[in-house]
Amino acid sequence: MDIKVPLDVPYEKRTSYINNLKLATQESGRLMLMAADQKAEHLNDDFFGEGVAKDDANPEHLFKIASNAKIGAFAAQLGLIARYAMDYPKIPYVIKLNSKTHLVKTSQRDPISTAWLDIKQIDRFRKQTGLNIVGVGYTIYPGSEYEHIMLNEAAKIIFEAHQSGLFSIIWAYPRGKAVKDEFDPHMIAGACGLAACLGSDFVKVNYPKKENENVNELFKEAIQAAGRTKVICAGGSSKDPKEFLNELYEQIHVSGVSGSATGRNIHQKPYDEAVKFCNAIFSIVVENKTLEEAFSIYQNNK
Amino acid sequence: MDIKVPLDVPYEKRTSYINNLKLATQESGRLMLMAADQKAEHLNDDFFGEGVAKDDANPEHLFKIASNAKIGAFAAQLGLIARYAMDYPKIPYVIKLNSKTHLVKTSQRDPISTAWLDIKQIDRFRKQTGLNIVGVGYTIYPGSEYEHIMLNEAAKIIFEAHQSGLFSIIWAYPRGKAVKDEFDPHMIAGACGLAACLGSDFVKVNYPKKENENVNELFKEAIQAAGRTKVICAGGSSKDPKEFLNELYEQIHVSGVSGSATGRNIHQKPYDEAVKFCNAIFSIVVENKTLEEAFSIYQNNK
Amino acid sequence: MDIKVPLDVPYEKRTSYINNLKLATQESGRLMLMAADQKAEHLNDDFFGEGVAKDDANPEHLFKIASNAKIGAFAAQLGLIARYAMDYPKIPYVIKLNSKTHLVKTSQRDPISTAWLDIKQIDRFRKQTGLNIVGVGYTIYPGSEYEHIMLNEAAKIIFEAHQSGLFSIIWAYPRGKAVKDEFDPHMIAGACGLAACLGSDFVKVNYPKKENENVNELFKEAIQAAGRTKVICAGGSSKDPKEFLNELYEQIHVSGVSGSATGRNIHQKPYDEAVKFCNAIFSIVVENKTLEEAFSIYQNNK
Amino acid sequence: MDIKVPLDVPYEKRTSYINNLKLATQESGRLMLMAADQKAEHLNDDFFGEGVAKDDANPEHLFKIASNAKIGAFAAQLGLIARYAMDYPKIPYVIKLNSKTHLVKTSQRDPISTAWLDIKQIDRFRKQTGLNIVGVGYTIYPGSEYEHIMLNEAAKIIFEAHQSGLFSIIWAYPRGKAVKDEFDPHMIAGACGLAACLGSDFVKVNYPKKENENVNELFKEAIQAAGRTKVICAGGSSKDPKEFLNELYEQIHVSGVSGSATGRNIHQKPYDEAVKFCNAIFSIVVENKTLEEAFSIYQNNK
Amino acid sequence: MDIKVPLDVPYEKRTSYINNLKLATQESGRLMLMAADQKAEHLNDDFFGEGVAKDDANPEHLFKIASNAKIGAFAAQLGLIARYAMDYPKIPYVIKLNSKTHLVKTSQRDPISTAWLDIKQIDRFRKQTGLNIVGVGYTIYPGSEYEHIMLNEAAKIIFEAHQSGLFSIIWAYPRGKAVKDEFDPHMIAGACGLAACLGSDFVKVNYPKKENENVNELFKEAIQAAGRTKVICAGGSSKDPKEFLNELYEQIHVSGVSGSATGRNIHQKPYDEAVKFCNAIFSIVVENKTLEEAFSIYQNNK
Repeated sequence: MDIKVPLDVPYEKRTSYINNLKLATQESGRLMLMAADQKAEHLNDDFFGEGVAKDDANPEHLFKIASNAKIGAFAAQLGLIARYAMDYPKIPYVIKLNSKTHLVKTSQRDPISTAWLDIKQIDRFRKQTGLNIVGVGYTIYPGSEYEHIMLNEAAKIIFEAHQSGLFSIIWAYPRGKAVKDEFDPHMIAGACGLAACLGSDFVKVNYPKKENENVNELFKEAIQAAGRTKVICAGGSSKDPKEFLNELYEQIHVSGVSGSATGRNIHQKPYDEAVKFCNAIFSIVVENKTLEEAFSIYQNNK
Repeated sequence: MDIKVPLDVPYEKRTSYINNLKLATQESGRLMLMAADQKAEHLNDDFFGEGVAKDDANPEHLFKIASNAKIGAFAAQLGLIARYAMDYPKIPYVIKLNSKTHLVKTSQRDPISTAWLDIKQIDRFRKQTGLNIVGVGYTIYPGSEYEHIMLNEAAKIIFEAHQSGLFSIIWAYPRGKAVKDEFDPHMIAGACGLAACLGSDFVKVNYPKKENENVNELFKEAIQAAGRTKVICAGGSSKDPKEFLNELYEQIHVSGVSGSATGRNIHQKPYDEAVKFCNAIFSIVVENKTLEEAFSIYQNNK
Repeated sequence: MDIKVPLDVPYEKRTSYINNLKLATQESGRLMLMAADQKAEHLNDDFFGEGVAKDDANPEHLFKIASNAKIGAFAAQLGLIARYAMDYPKIPYVIKLNSKTHLVKTSQRDPISTAWLDIKQIDRFRKQTGLNIVGVGYTIYPGSEYEHIMLNEAAKIIFEAHQSGLFSIIWAYPRGKAVKDEFDPHMIAGACGLAACLGSDFVKVNYPKKENENVNELFKEAIQAAGRTKVICAGGSSKDPKEFLNELYEQIHVSGVSGSATGRNIHQKPYDEAVKFCNAIFSIVVENKTLEEAFSIYQNNK
Repeated sequence: MDIKVPLDVPYEKRTSYINNLKLATQESGRLMLMAADQKAEHLNDDFFGEGVAKDDANPEHLFKIASNAKIGAFAAQLGLIARYAMDYPKIPYVIKLNSKTHLVKTSQRDPISTAWLDIKQIDRFRKQTGLNIVGVGYTIYPGSEYEHIMLNEAAKIIFEAHQSGLFSIIWAYPRGKAVKDEFDPHMIAGACGLAACLGSDFVKVNYPKKENENVNELFKEAIQAAGRTKVICAGGSSKDPKEFLNELYEQIHVSGVSGSATGRNIHQKPYDEAVKFCNAIFSIVVENKTLEEAFSIYQNNK
Repeated sequence: MDIKVPLDVPYEKRTSYINNLKLATQESGRLMLMAADQKAEHLNDDFFGEGVAKDDANPEHLFKIASNAKIGAFAAQLGLIARYAMDYPKIPYVIKLNSKTHLVKTSQRDPISTAWLDIKQIDRFRKQTGLNIVGVGYTIYPGSEYEHIMLNEAAKIIFEAHQSGLFSIIWAYPRGKAVKDEFDPHMIAGACGLAACLGSDFVKVNYPKKENENVNELFKEAIQAAGRTKVICAGGSSKDPKEFLNELYEQIHVSGVSGSATGRNIHQKPYDEAVKFCNAIFSIVVENKTLEEAFSIYQNNK
C-alpha cells in the first residue's frame, strides 16, 4: 500500500498519519467504515421498530459488533465514544464532528450542521485516553443556503486534522432547495470534486441512481473527479444481504470505489448476524474476497 | 453504586467527577433534582397567582426548601445561586447554563437558547466560592431551526464540564414547527439517543403521552436509546400529590428512569408541605421506598 | 446598611464592591440614579423642542446637574463620560454598556441592543482615569426574538462586573411582537425575576399600569419576585413635579422599591430647577424625607 | 487651541493624541477633511463620466491634490493608502475603517457596513510605515435594522483608537426603512448626539434640508447636541464653487460647524483647479478667511 | 520591472514579496494565471461531458499541464494543492481562499463565500512544505446582500497576506439582485476601484460586454480606476483558440490589462494541446509575442 501523505501533514506527524491510515485500511488501500453516528441524524427511527432487531435499541449494540467483527474504523460522536470506549478500547475510532437531526426538512429550511467540537479538543481527548482515534468526519451539504458555513468549517477541520496526524472523511450530500436530484451521478461527481478541493482523504457519498442507466459505469465520473481523495459509498437503508454485497462488490470492482460506510445494514441485524455481515463486508472491501466467499461468510458462520 | 467515568474526564479529575455524582445521587445511582430554574422560562407565572402558595412569590423559598428537605441537587442559574448560597452553603448545586423566556411561541419563531456563561467562568466561580457545584445543565430543542447552535454548544459544554470534573444534564425538548408531537414516546426516545451522542450524564425529558397506550411500557424505548446516559423525568405542572408520587414510582420501577426533576410540584406548595413533598420524592427516587411509605412521609409528618 | 455581597464577587474585590454600593446608595440601601443615557435611545427628542428647557440642548447640562445636585449615581455611555468627566470628576458613574436608537419600531423588527464595550475595557478605563466608576448598566428586552443574545450578554456582563468589584443594573423592558402589554404588573414581575436569575444587583423597570387597579399594591409582586435583586423604577416622560414626587414616595413606601432612575423629569428642566428637583428626589429616595419636605426642597430653594 | 483630551486616551498617549489633532486642524480647532474614500461607496460613478474631469479617473489624482494643496487630513481606506503613500508621505492620513458599495438600496435591505480592519492592525501599519496616521473613520447608519452591529463596532473602535492616541471621526447617516427623512435637522441633531454618546472626536453629517426654513439656524440644534464632539459637514455632490464656498462659510459662521469633509467638489475638478479649490476651502475652514478671499484663491491663482 | 511594494508589507518581508511577484510575473509586470479552482464553483460541469477532453476528468490533469507548460502561477484551493504538490513541486502556487458551488442561484439568494483558511494557516503550510506559495486569492461579490462580510474578509486577508510577504488577487464579480448587468463596463470599473481600496495587488474581473460598442476602449475605464492595482481578465467558457488569443492580445495592447486568468480554455483541452495553448497564452502575456507568433506556438508544436 502506497500512501501519499498530503502536504498539510507536518513532518513530525507523518508517521502518525500513516499509521492511522494503515490501521483503518489494514493496508488494503480501502476503508470499511462502520457508521455508528445515526442516533443523531435519524433519532431512534433506525434503532427501534419494525424490521429492526431488538438488540439495536441499546447503543452498546454498536460497540459490541465493532469490537468482535472485522471492521476498518467505527464512526461516532465523541460523546458516545467517551461513554463506551473504556470497555471497547481496541476499536479504531473516527470522531464524527457534526450531526443534526432529520426533523427540519429541506422544504422548511436548507440543511445546516456545525462542528460540535474542534480539533484541539479531539487532540486533548486522544492524548488523555490513548484511544485509537484515527480520523475525523464532517458532513457538508453542497447546494444548501448555508453551504458556505460548512465548506469553511470542513476546510479548517481537514487542515487541522492533518496538522495533528489524523485523516479526514467528508460526508458529502448535495441537498437544499437548489438541488433537484441528490442522486444524480453528475451531481455526486461534483460533490467528490469539491471534497478533493477541501483536501479530504475520503469522501463518503450516496451511491447514485439513474433510471435505465448502468450506474456502476456512470459512477466512474465521481471516482475520477475525486482524484487522490478516496470515494466510499454510504450503505443506505437495510436491504437484502446478498443484494447489498453484490452492489458493494460492483461498486469496488466496476466503479472503483475505495470502501464502504455501513450503518443500518449492519446494526439493524441481531448481534450474531450483524457480526457475520460485518465480516462479509470486510472480506470484500479489505480482504478482496469474491461475492460468493463473502456471502458464505455471512450465511454459514464466521 | 458502580460509576463508569466517561473518558473525557481526565485522570486528575476522576475523583472530583465521582464525588460530584455520588453527592448528587447519594450513591443510589438515581438523581432527585430540584428544578429551581423556571423564573426565567416561565417568568412569574409559576410563582404567583391562583393555586400557588404565597411563600413561592419570593425566590428564597426555593433555597429554604432545598436546604431543609432531602434533595439530590438543586438546579438554578448562577446569578440566583450567587445571591443566596452564602446562606445555603450545603446544597449541591447544578448550574443551569442557558434559559429563555416562554414569551416567543413556536408559532412565531422556533426556540433558541444559548449559554449565559462558559465552563471557564463556572470553574472560576467554583474555586472562588468553594460551593458544592456538582454539575451543569443545558437545554436543547431538537427539531428547532436553531438546533445546530444548541447541539454545538451542548457538546462543547459537556466535554468541558467533564474536563473540569463536573457532570452534565441535558434538558431535551423536541420543539419547533417541524415537531408535530413533543410527547410522542418515539420522539422522546430520539431525544434521549441524541443526548447519548452528546455524551451527557443525564438527560431530562418530558414524560411521554399517548392515548390508549401504556406509556410506562412505551417509555422503555427511551431508556434503552439513552444507553449509559441516565434518563430523568420532568415533573410538569402541579398535580395531585398521590398521583404524582404514583407516576414517579412507575417511571422508576416500570419504565426504568434514573430520577426526577421536579419544580412546580415542590415549590408551589407552602414551605412545610414543600419540604415534606421533597422528602417523599426523595424517598422513592433515592431511598427506594414504596409508594405508601412515600405518601405517608408527605402526609403525616416530616 | 447590610450588604450581602454576591458570591461571584471574589474575595479580593469585596471591599471595592461594597464601597461602590455604599457610595451609590449613600448607605441608605436605596439608589437614586440619574439616567443620562437617553441621547442614544431617544436621539434629540428628549433634549430639544417644546416643553424642554433650552439648557438641555447641550449634553454638558447633564453633568452640571449631577455635579451640583445630590444624586446616587449617574448613568451614561462611556464615550460621553470620557469627554466630560475631567471637569466633573466627583460624580459616581455607572457605565451604560448597550444602547440603541428608537427608530426601528417593534412593528418593524423586535428590539436588539448589544454591548458597546466589554468589562475588560471598562476596567482599563477605570484604572487609567481613577474615576468613581461604581457599576455598569445593560438593557434586556424579554420577549424579543433576539432575547437570547441579550440574556447571554447580560449574564456575562454581570458576572464579569462582579469579578471586577462593580455592581450591575439591568434595564428590563419586556418588548417585542410577543409582548401584548409592557406595563402589565405580572409581566413586569416576570422581568424582575428574570433579572434575579441573571444575578443583577438592581433591576430598572417601568412602573406598571393597570386600569382601575391599585398599581402600588400590584407592584409588590415584582418586588418579591426580584428577591435580593433591588427594584428601581424608571421615571418616564416629564410630568407634574408634585405628582412625580408623590408617585415616587408611594413606590418606595407602599410598593417597596429600592430607588429610582430619573432622566427627563430632571434634565428637561432649566439648570437651577433641575438641581432642586434632583435634591427633592434624593431626599425621598435616600434621605427618607416626607413628600412635603421633598416638595418644599424643590419649590422653595435648595 | 484648547484641546480637551478625552479620558479614554491613556496618559502615555496624550501627546500623540494632541499632536494628531493639532496636525489635522493646524491648531485652528477646525478640520478640513479631504474625503477620498468614495471609490468603495460610489464605485466609479463619482470618478468617471459627464461632469467629471478626466484626471479623476485615476486614484492617484486624489493623492496628488492632497499632497500639493492645503488640507487638514486625507481620509481613505488603508489599502489605497498603502499603495500610494510611499510617494505622498507627508499627507496626514485618516484611515476609513468601513465602507460598502451603494448597490443594495434601502428599499431592498437596510444598510450595513462593518470594519475592514481593527485598531491593532492600524497600529501595526502605523509603526511599520511611520506615516502620519492621525485618526480613523467609521460610518454608522442610525435607524438601520443592523444599527446595533455598527454602534457596537463604532464604540469599540473609538475607545481603542483613543487608547492608541488616534482621534476618531464618525460618519453618521440616519438611513433605513425606519428613517423617513435623512435630511431632517432634528434627525441629524439626533445623529450628532449619538456620536457624542459613542465618544467620537468628530461627527460627519449631511447638511440638513428643510423647505422654507433657515437651515443654518436649524442646524445649531445639531451642534449643541454634539456637545464636545465636533460637527463637520459632508460636501455632497458637485455644485457651483461660489455657492459651495458660501454654504461652507455660513455653516461655520452661522451654524457653528467645526469643519468640512469634501470629496466630489474637489476631486471631480481638473488637477490645478482642484488644488486651488482645496486651498479656498482650507482658507475658510482653517485660516479664517472671508468668502471673498476664499473665492479669489480659487479663481485667480494659487 | 519596477515594483512598488505596498506599505503594509513590512520591511523584513519586502524581499519575499518582491520575489513572489517576480516569480509569478517572470519580471514582465504581467501575470498569466492558470485558474484551477473551479471544481468547487462549477462542480464537475467544467471537467466532464460534451466538449471536454477526457483528460480533464481527473484533477491531476491540471497539475500536469501547469508543471510542463509555461505559466505564471497556478491558483487552487489548499486542499487540492496539498494532495498533488509533492509531485509538482516547482509550480508557483496561489492559494484560493474562498470558494462556493454555483448551485444556489442569485434568484434564490445573493451570493456569499467565506474564507476556508486564514493567513496564519497558509503561513504554517508554506513553512512546513517549502512550496512556492506566492500569493492568495479571494472572491468578492459587490452588490450582494452579504457584500459586507466579503469586503471585511478581503481587506483583512490582503493586509495579512502583505504582512507575510504574499501578494493578493481579488476575484471581483458584481452579483446579486441589486446588480442589473454584471458585464457593464462601468460596473466592472467600479469593481476594479473597489479592489484598489481593498489594497489588492491584482483584481480579476470578467471582460465587459456591451452591444455595439468597442469594449476594448470602454474597458480602459476599469484599468484607470484600478490605479496601481493590476487588472487581469477572466477567460470565461471555452472558445475558438484563435479568437481567444486575439481577444487576449487586444485586452493587453488596447485596453491595457496586466494579465489573464485562464481555466476552461486550457484544461478542457487534451493534455498536449492544453500545454501548447498555455504556452501560447504565456507568449502574449509575458513574452510580448505577436498574435501570429502565439497562434503558431499553439498550432504547430510546442
